[in-house]
Amino acid sequence: MQLQPILIDGQWRQADVAGEFRAENPATREPLEESYPVSSWRDCDEALNAAVAAAARLRGMSGAQIAHFLDRAAERIDSQRDAIVRLAHLETALAISPRLADIELPRTTNQLRQAAAAARDGSWALPTIDVKANIRSCFAPIGPVCVLGPNNFPLAFNSVCGGDFAAAIAAGNPVIAKGHPSHPGTTRLLAEEVRAAADETGMPTGAVQLLYRLGPADGLRLAADPRIGATGFTGSRRAGLKLKAAADAAGKPIYLEMSSINPVVILPHALAERAAEIVDQFVASCLAGSGQFCTNPGLVILLAGRESEAFLAAVADRFRTAPVGTLLAGGVASALAASVENLRSGGANIVAGGTVGGGPGHSFANTLLRVSGRQFLASAAALQSEAFGNASLSVLAADVAEASRIVESLEGNLTGSIYSSSAGHDDLAYFELASRLRPRVGRLLGDKMPTGVAVSPAMNHGGPFPATGHPGFTAVGIPASLRRFSMLTCYDNVRNHRLPQLLADKNPTGQTWRCVDGRWTHEDVQ
Amino acid sequence: MQLQPILIDGQWRQADVAGEFRAENPATREPLEESYPVSSWRDCDEALNAAVAAAARLRGMSGAQIAHFLDRAAERIDSQRDAIVRLAHLETALAISPRLADIELPRTTNQLRQAAAAARDGSWALPTIDVKANIRSCFAPIGPVCVLGPNNFPLAFNSVCGGDFAAAIAAGNPVIAKGHPSHPGTTRLLAEEVRAAADETGMPTGAVQLLYRLGPADGLRLAADPRIGATGFTGSRRAGLKLKAAADAAGKPIYLEMSSINPVVILPHALAERAAEIVDQFVASCLAGSGQFCTNPGLVILLAGRESEAFLAAVADRFRTAPVGTLLAGGVASALAASVENLRSGGANIVAGGTVGGGPGHSFANTLLRVSGRQFLASAAALQSEAFGNASLSVLAADVAEASRIVESLEGNLTGSIYSSSAGHDDLAYFELASRLRPRVGRLLGDKMPTGVAVSPAMNHGGPFPATGHPGFTAVGIPASLRRFSMLTCYDNVRNHRLPQLLADKNPTGQTWRCVDGRWTHEDVQ
Repeated sequence: MQLQPILIDGQWRQADVAGEFRAENPATREPLEESYPVSSWRDCDEALNAAVAAAARLRGMSGAQIAHFLDRAAERIDSQRDAIVRLAHLETALAISPRLADIELPRTTNQLRQAAAAARDGSWALPTIDVKANIRSCFAPIGPVCVLGPNNFPLAFNSVCGGDFAAAIAAGNPVIAKGHPSHPGTTRLLAEEVRAAADETGMPTGAVQLLYRLGPADGLRLAADPRIGATGFTGSRRAGLKLKAAADAAGKPIYLEMSSINPVVILPHALAERAAEIVDQFVASCLAGSGQFCTNPGLVILLAGRESEAFLAAVADRFRTAPVGTLLAGGVASALAASVENLRSGGANIVAGGTVGGGPGHSFANTLLRVSGRQFLASAAALQSEAFGNASLSVLAADVAEASRIVESLEGNLTGSIYSSSAGHDDLAYFELASRLRPRVGRLLGDKMPTGVAVSPAMNHGGPFPATGHPGFTAVGIPASLRRFSMLTCYDNVRNHRLPQLLADKNPTGQTWRCVDGRWTHEDVQ
Repeated sequence: MQLQPILIDGQWRQADVAGEFRAENPATREPLEESYPVSSWRDCDEALNAAVAAAARLRGMSGAQIAHFLDRAAERIDSQRDAIVRLAHLETALAISPRLADIELPRTTNQLRQAAAAARDGSWALPTIDVKANIRSCFAPIGPVCVLGPNNFPLAFNSVCGGDFAAAIAAGNPVIAKGHPSHPGTTRLLAEEVRAAADETGMPTGAVQLLYRLGPADGLRLAADPRIGATGFTGSRRAGLKLKAAADAAGKPIYLEMSSINPVVILPHALAERAAEIVDQFVASCLAGSGQFCTNPGLVILLAGRESEAFLAAVADRFRTAPVGTLLAGGVASALAASVENLRSGGANIVAGGTVGGGPGHSFANTLLRVSGRQFLASAAALQSEAFGNASLSVLAADVAEASRIVESLEGNLTGSIYSSSAGHDDLAYFELASRLRPRVGRLLGDKMPTGVAVSPAMNHGGPFPATGHPGFTAVGIPASLRRFSMLTCYDNVRNHRLPQLLADKNPTGQTWRCVDGRWTHEDVQ
């Protein structure tokens, strides 16, 4: 059977094949029909050359042209919604409705449209003008971006149309997408629409390219190639750290979203006040999408006592009775089983679940574990390793002081949440714990579970290592996410007609925010 | 003789000594009187612990308090100007006037005052508020910052009061300063003033600490220590890459300014129009401070022809007759000799200079080399290695196409300049070369030499690897330089009274720029 073609320099063509693979329906464990190629380095090399040519052409295009492309890609994806979500469901077992059709696909096209608006407007680039010295600077494209997408968002973080893609393109860069091998068909459908949109809107042929799979050495080589501007990666810590080492050694920026257990502290007066509501929120957040979110609450920190015991009992009960979902792949199920075993080896006990199976296809019982604060502190490294899926570890701290030490033992995370009494009864504990949690997480939540990452300009979907590779950047939230894929460019004494439009005397749109002599304004430079 | 004390946790005390050293007067090659300690790891460890405590206290302090400290440090340094510049002159051979007293010291205290203003105002943190979603974010301190200062700016980039120091403190972080061993006495005088200012203004004892010298393994260990937030380094590529590898492996941000040859393209019609003026500017830029600037124009790209030959002849003449300055140290002189030899091995010929000595103490003749474009392209790696000091390589390209290829062969640099006809006669060549130079440099200059890095909000003193470690950050220019030493922090559904002042409904100063629902404003959130 012929392998599906890859997309190189505007053409769908056969890969230089180093191997082949098929996706699997995780709900039936049956392989799906189509076969996809593993590319050799030659495909990467050709993609890189086309991307370099595209990068040069994109630098000469206006934000409005790039925006047109992104808007058109969103329209085309919306128009193929049914086919896309049907295949995504087959490849991932995520529910068609509401998850894929009503949440993730609209999120995906909304991100593309927000990125288009950011590209059109230009304010994302923080144009900064010192009139008297005639020194002007802004962020500008960094060059070809390699995007490696994750398994858990087949649409919204897909390498050919997701968050990193939208940010890289909106910042003016071509993208070399490396699809996730668990949903190649979904990626193909999305890439067809995006490629057609690129054609329709006059993008260079190398603006969007797609490879389905690489040998591991070629992935590292790609992230370190001199022709690459930067890499965006979402996935496991193990793969992420290897890519990081390769990119770092070559001096290439890489943005990684690797792993996070997203601690949730629930203080006793919050439970006394509204336990049922918090149980609902916690169970929903833990089990949604079978827990396969980067912001899944994998660690809940409680103070030992009656309220906390009642909370855990209620959660365990709900975990046992809730349906067990299908996991994204067999590898996710076996990794989850190994991770739970790892937590047990660290001293945690199973409260609910803990066994393989229980749902259709690849699955693992909804799992709640518990451990004392003292034991957590004794095995902090093992007990904060991520168990990706529908499992969560509760830690019962003896008192606020011990809870503080637990928080201080945590490595970097994407999020941290604290539930506290609305009447102020937990305020002392809140202050104590929040001050320690704050530097360890990218996003601090109040009375709220971490799943559901709003695409807001104020969002931070990032955090200290090893949650990501650098604590100054966010993968979600436009326009900030664009700045990952840019370099700071300064013009010193350059004549006005030679400046990029963003920095010329005249405000390019009349509405672009620029910082002129320390003042943010829409005005032209006088 | 007793060794000079180090500054740990607010106390001047004897080091845990792993060795000792003395500085040298480069103009006489005589060692100076005082002896300074090489610290063992125990000193680093104690400094780290004190810095962690200070970081927690600084997080609770207002920008106004930190500003008060920086302003007071500037005042104290100004008041000790004569003693400071006298000792800096002895240790570096840089001229007291105008360089040290009239340029570098005022620049230093000006940077401290600009950083104070940025800390007081808070706009540097890009506070961003999504009112409806109640998601708010801003940049915030990253934790203890290790600053390793260079040899060539004993004041303005000194680790205890220079650009990185000012940026790290203004962003709310304690600094562990590692002085440069070629000017320890200057560093000591500056640290005494800064420490006294910290005392007077109620800073935590670990806010500013000073070590004079470390074993090489301990420097790497410091940059990778879990207690460190980030590192700022200015110096050689060799040392920078080692530090980068250590920090990268630990997932610690590091900002490096390593090496740059700062290509200057001079187009023929510019020479036809104003050769004398360009010769003056080039010679001044090359020889100022004996060429010991990170933005020294080390490579000049010319088009072969009569104008360019006349330019080179005039420059060579000026190089031969100009006084030969003293270099910062014997190591700088020997490295310069080796670098010039390296350029010769790559095929370059000496036009002027090329010999050791000629000035007081450590010195090297003002040196101009030349090479054909063809030869440059054949040995591009060797011919673009930095020769730090009063030497420059000229490349004679056969035509604009060859000049383009030369520019495309360049690695990342801090700056790139193009001189062109004011009447538009070089416009085609300008466009061709500027489009290729732009992505390879942080700052593109028009008709201007790269030395003299203005402390402007629009400045970019950064650039693609290996000029620095990441092309998105600048080491000069306030407020942008502060953001290197910060992490992005987001607050999701956090109650208003628990938010940091920068993100609370009320604008904290009434004048802080915040991006509220996409609009930059001074207003309170309604």
